Amino acid sequence: MVDEAERVARMALTCVVEPGDLKLGQMLERFGAEELWQVVCASTSDHPWTRRAQALKLPAVRELAARHGIRFVIPSDAEWPAQLGVLATGEPVQGDGGVPAGLWVRGQGSLAALTQRSVAIVGARASTAYGDRVAADLAAGLAAAGVTVVSGGAYGIDAAAHRGSLAEGGPTVAVLARGLDDAYPRPHAPLLASVAERGVVVSELPPGESPSRRRFLTRNRLIAALTTATIIVEAAVRSGAKNTATWVTACGRQLLAVPGPVGNATSYTPHQLIRGRDAELVSSVAEVLELIAPVGQALVERPRVERLLDGLDPGERAVYEALPSRGSRDVGDLAVRSGLVVPACLAALQRLADASLAVACDDGGWRLGRAQDRPVAVGSAQQKQQG
Amino acid sequence: MVDEAERVARMALTCVVEPGDLKLGQMLERFGAEELWQVVCASTSDHPWTRRAQALKLPAVRELAARHGIRFVIPSDAEWPAQLGVLATGEPVQGDGGVPAGLWVRGQGSLAALTQRSVAIVGARASTAYGDRVAADLAAGLAAAGVTVVSGGAYGIDAAAHRGSLAEGGPTVAVLARGLDDAYPRPHAPLLASVAERGVVVSELPPGESPSRRRFLTRNRLIAALTTATIIVEAAVRSGAKNTATWVTACGRQLLAVPGPVGNATSYTPHQLIRGRDAELVSSVAEVLELIAPVGQALVERPRVERLLDGLDPGERAVYEALPSRGSRDVGDLAVRSGLVVPACLAALQRLADASLAVACDDGGWRLGRAQDRPVAVGSAQQKQQG
Repeated sequence: MVDEAERVARMALTCVVEPGDLKLGQMLERFGAEELWQVVCASTSDHPWTRRAQALKLPAVRELAARHGIRFVIPSDAEWPAQLGVLATGEPVQGDGGVPAGLWVRGQGSLAALTQRSVAIVGARASTAYGDRVAADLAAGLAAAGVTVVSGGAYGIDAAAHRGSLAEGGPTVAVLARGLDDAYPRPHAPLLASVAERGVVVSELPPGESPSRRRFLTRNRLIAALTTATIIVEAAVRSGAKNTATWVTACGRQLLAVPGPVGNATSYTPHQLIRGRDAELVSSVAEVLELIAPVGQALVERPRVERLLDGLDPGERAVYEALPSRGSRDVGDLAVRSGLVVPACLAALQRLADASLAVACDDGGWRLGRAQDRPVAVGSAQQKQQG
Repeated sequence: MVDEAERVARMALTCVVEPGDLKLGQMLERFGAEELWQVVCASTSDHPWTRRAQALKLPAVRELAARHGIRFVIPSDAEWPAQLGVLATGEPVQGDGGVPAGLWVRGQGSLAALTQRSVAIVGARASTAYGDRVAADLAAGLAAAGVTVVSGGAYGIDAAAHRGSLAEGGPTVAVLARGLDDAYPRPHAPLLASVAERGVVVSELPPGESPSRRRFLTRNRLIAALTTATIIVEAAVRSGAKNTATWVTACGRQLLAVPGPVGNATSYTPHQLIRGRDAELVSSVAEVLELIAPVGQALVERPRVERLLDGLDPGERAVYEALPSRGSRDVGDLAVRSGLVVPACLAALQRLADASLAVACDDGGWRLGRAQDRPVAVGSAQQKQQG
């Protein structure tokens, strides 16, 4: 039974402490949440926390949260994602860091369960059609493999990632840099509503708060810490992706990047991250699955799909990677995409079908193997290794 | 004064010894060329060299060579590229290797001078428009920087590389897997004629010989050994590029690869080479120049262009990389390609122009800085380090 006073104190702290303030963790360790909140309120200094505490109308914040179906989750709750613990010990980035006092959450899913096996897909707001397609395809393929896609709920790559996951019937998690009462950018309100229907929308900021540059950057640490790996799809020369990359590394998570046409401005940062060996190049769902679940690490048992992928030869792998997760593709199209001649492509499809990795569709085309082949969710004991 | 008997003996040896036969080097070391040729001719065994020597009509071969303007170059000639020496000590690949007995050469240039500062660009015959454009742009930019582009004279990426270099007014070298009398593939005859006008066409096979799968593969060792680095642009899952990659590594040269859209079959092998860290990702001429001339290595003095590039910030670098080597681009286009806003792009262009790295064109657009900024050719003393 969680102490309600602890919950209220942490709630109040998220209203007065700017996200990423490293002093929060030190003070929580020294006082505990309840006593810290009393100290902040009783202080006569003009410390920003105290000034904000004096102006705070917590009942109004709680009423706003209730009206928008926003709950508040704290570290002692079952829904708290244990892997955020990495932020207590990780390197600060630009002077910011630390575990949030709590998280504001909206939606049907459990944040802990959803992010237990999750990958972030983030990138440019001003994305290209190529980037949107790649982000949506990766997200759909990860959803089909039972991996939750986490992103930042922004235009461009973020939106494409959420949509790709939802289209495959998968849940997805949006981590925002503002209060969850306001669906900014407004045209995204329907998308975020869909995210909340099957997954969750999350923020460390209480309802009523607006985004700022710093808040976008500290938000990136939550995306990095929640997930096993972060995939950068498209980012121009000046981009938040480099900040994300730094957080991913600081949290000891895997940084992956998708290459693109070398003439595109949005290929610049992914290519630089790959060149500098900060990020691994990934070009398919299979490669992502391989990287996030290497033998004997992170997972008790490697999911069936990944074990099966080990046995594929390069031709079969190329055909597997060309299979759509939605709709179907005919053999001619698959042969072109995989670089095989049609008879070799057909033979590869037959072997993939034998392993339930490909399914023949009624229209004569082929698609990825589905539901019954999805990897089983993994136990929480191992998951703690991440934290 | 080179002994004519030595030249004729080596010429005859190229007619009877299959390229890449490791025994040639051992036998040349033991006997020398003249005596080896006498041994081969005098033998009564049914060794393939002897059988072929008995059938050889060398005067007919020499007449064919003369008719097509083909000369024969041997290691004691000034035109011999010293860096081929690496093949005497390098690792064999699939049982093949070794320095050729001599090279058949057609064209106006000197093979040694042309390849002193050279980079290979090779890739898929069945290339995409994207790959052709990238290969041509890289080749044009390298030509503008005084680097000779070497390729295999095939359709697709090879042809685009030769054309890009020629369009910039640069010389280029085509290394073929057949005799130089026959312009196979025939539609390429005009392209190879243009190559010979400003550069050279080269083969270790005498006139009259046809290509084979093995000859294509052993030809790849000459491209790898002649150049400082080999750039792979587009290669599908089953491709000769992997053999090229092995030769490049065996010769201790740099392997570079250009990424592309992840859905294209021709992006498969470049991405795999980058993922496996067999190849460095390159996305621009500036990156290639940086990799082939690291500080204090290979070159006495770093060319002016490269030293200037060191001082660029990421925005200036992005604008520099978006500048065309032919024609011009307007500021709006450059801003989009570099991911900068127009005022920042204009400021970067002004700084690039101050450093002679950009030139304002009469049509109001911009292009790369030209001729007077090209790096100076380097001394041969240092070049020997490559061999």
